[in-house]
Amino acid sequence: MKRVGILGGGQLGLLLSQSIFRLGGTVVIYDPDPAAPACNQTAHAIHSGWTDLAALEKFFAQCDVVTYEFENVDSAWLHQLEQKRALLPSAHVLKTTQDRLIEKRFLRQYNFPHARFDVVQGVEQIPKQAASLGYPCVLKSVRGGYDGKGQFFLHNEEEAQSAMRQLGSDANSDYLGVLEEALDIAMEVSCIVARSRREEEIIFPVFQNIHKDHILDFTCFPAGIPEPVAQKVQEIALNVTRSLDVYGLLTTEFFLTKSATESSVKTGADGWHVLVNELAPRPHNSGHVTINACTLSQYDALARVLLDLPLAQPQNLAPGFYCMGNLLGDIWLAQGQEELNLSALADHPSVVDVVIYGKKEARSKRKMGHFVTYGDSPSAALESAKSFRKSLLNPAPTVA
Amino acid sequence: MKRVGILGGGQLGLLLSQSIFRLGGTVVIYDPDPAAPACNQTAHAIHSGWTDLAALEKFFAQCDVVTYEFENVDSAWLHQLEQKRALLPSAHVLKTTQDRLIEKRFLRQYNFPHARFDVVQGVEQIPKQAASLGYPCVLKSVRGGYDGKGQFFLHNEEEAQSAMRQLGSDANSDYLGVLEEALDIAMEVSCIVARSRREEEIIFPVFQNIHKDHILDFTCFPAGIPEPVAQKVQEIALNVTRSLDVYGLLTTEFFLTKSATESSVKTGADGWHVLVNELAPRPHNSGHVTINACTLSQYDALARVLLDLPLAQPQNLAPGFYCMGNLLGDIWLAQGQEELNLSALADHPSVVDVVIYGKKEARSKRKMGHFVTYGDSPSAALESAKSFRKSLLNPAPTVA
Repeated sequence: MKRVGILGGGQLGLLLSQSIFRLGGTVVIYDPDPAAPACNQTAHAIHSGWTDLAALEKFFAQCDVVTYEFENVDSAWLHQLEQKRALLPSAHVLKTTQDRLIEKRFLRQYNFPHARFDVVQGVEQIPKQAASLGYPCVLKSVRGGYDGKGQFFLHNEEEAQSAMRQLGSDANSDYLGVLEEALDIAMEVSCIVARSRREEEIIFPVFQNIHKDHILDFTCFPAGIPEPVAQKVQEIALNVTRSLDVYGLLTTEFFLTKSATESSVKTGADGWHVLVNELAPRPHNSGHVTINACTLSQYDALARVLLDLPLAQPQNLAPGFYCMGNLLGDIWLAQGQEELNLSALADHPSVVDVVIYGKKEARSKRKMGHFVTYGDSPSAALESAKSFRKSLLNPAPTVA
Repeated sequence: MKRVGILGGGQLGLLLSQSIFRLGGTVVIYDPDPAAPACNQTAHAIHSGWTDLAALEKFFAQCDVVTYEFENVDSAWLHQLEQKRALLPSAHVLKTTQDRLIEKRFLRQYNFPHARFDVVQGVEQIPKQAASLGYPCVLKSVRGGYDGKGQFFLHNEEEAQSAMRQLGSDANSDYLGVLEEALDIAMEVSCIVARSRREEEIIFPVFQNIHKDHILDFTCFPAGIPEPVAQKVQEIALNVTRSLDVYGLLTTEFFLTKSATESSVKTGADGWHVLVNELAPRPHNSGHVTINACTLSQYDALARVLLDLPLAQPQNLAPGFYCMGNLLGDIWLAQGQEELNLSALADHPSVVDVVIYGKKEARSKRKMGHFVTYGDSPSAALESAKSFRKSLLNPAPTVA
């Protein structure tokens, strides 16, 4: 039986493990935390830090193939380790996507549409460069930024000064950031591509993502966009995957704008323009919905690539519409108990899945689980998702 | 987090575990075999024999609620253990369904349609009683019979004598069996009902089951029967579940005949008559297909009952047709290798799921995995299932 190593034992690793198990593979998790979600459900795990090269070596030696669900691993080390064991996607892919600056240069080099940007070296440069790029603009850190961490939306000189002071006080003497033009975003969408070492390629339908406080809030499936826009998004996602030479999964996140910008591209539908936002070479939060909506999920697809099994083009299972909603720790905190009270399910038959990740400690904004609704229309699915989540905040007493 | 104990770590326990995990519960498996499928994927397991009352006591003490995926546990012991911890379904339900004679008497008592039968006490009674019931008839052992084990189809006196000799030589001095009239079976179907301690009841669509050598070969979803027949089957399945006072799952297997027999009941469709075959108070092989075909699977439903969460009526996800096929050890033996070669997936995009249970040793007729196809018509789904399984017997060489 093939042994697949997964760097990271979070919910993405957990759900990937399940697809690997189903296809007869075994899984080894590497995660510093013995209580990480994927570690609760697999017999094999190594618990050590991300900087423990000896432990990482031991981990790689136990596996036939390794992947990651977590991007903050040193890609130079992984490049060394992948000389002996296949790492999918490669350390080169990770190196490109874990660094916002390298990623943007990749997009520029291959001429993929992306927001205008400037590199910021040193916090003291922020006000000057923001003025030069033009307000409003967005300041983002180059490394370790996810769910909006390290981001500043700058409307004016005053906010730029404030960001400078805040980042300066964080002892960022060697601060490296990226300033991006602020776009008038009409919609955010994502598209997942899987590519195998057999050179098979599959493209998932386009999802529409709704964020709140920079964290994914809802994913609507399929995205409410004209077909020519979906085609353009899928075409770019596939080309990015090929250009980056990804074997495994690549999620490309997009901004859609109503009016053209300097670097956006047109689609076949009037008034729809496309730019690439960022890339993630791993299963993606927005792709949870594929478990319910597609004949093959993002996790199944990656499992097949890792186990060297043939891919199949995912089909939509049902004629209707799905909505995935994240369940953040705030709901647990609001309920005030360790175990989530799911009695609201009784009044929400449209909820077709609830997945709780088994994280011990509920914290604000921590992703603790997700759920999926199904409806006859996009708005029916979204509205019932909102209603269900609202009910969770104020649950009926549990039946004794 | 609620701890659910499962007696038995086979594939039914494995798939149930996954549904429990997804809803935030934890699982403890009791199985003598440390390599049992469910034990590969859960951190908590107790490995001891089925007759080790002390180990069973320890197991019950660790759990908030216990269920079983395996029926050959002493129900008297379980009745003793359920005084302290909820066992769902109850020991009374298990006692009834694990003994073919008690089960048949239950069906008779509540007037559910079933084949005419006689009790056989002692092998020497077989020929006389078979002649009295009338040939052809079917001899079945009262305990421990599944997948056709211990069954004899008797066409004449000679075969009855042969069965008597064979069972007599097995040192069955206190043999207890059941002789059933052989029915002219047009179709076999099954129907799963889930019932919660909140008195919620859900009924799954009716599945059509195709057996080979007494082992389930294919399950077609939904069954190719007129709507009034499906309604009658669902109505009986629900009434059986209520009469037996099941909390959890009950699968009722049915025989459909084209002509009326002494004890069959009519349906609303001409030429369709119904009899109950047997009952299983646990997830059922035929119910695997609900993972793919329904908004809520049989495993999800049982997990919700065990975790005391509200049930929801399962809906068909897609407008088309599914077929579940079992993968027996014979395919592994034919391929001649430990790991199943699944390269046939490449030519069978209609295969929407493959589940390998991770059993170490492939044996003839051992259930090692299953798969599910999807098609526009019942025959398309069934034919592609047959074609896929045939291809597995003669796979293309693996890509190096």
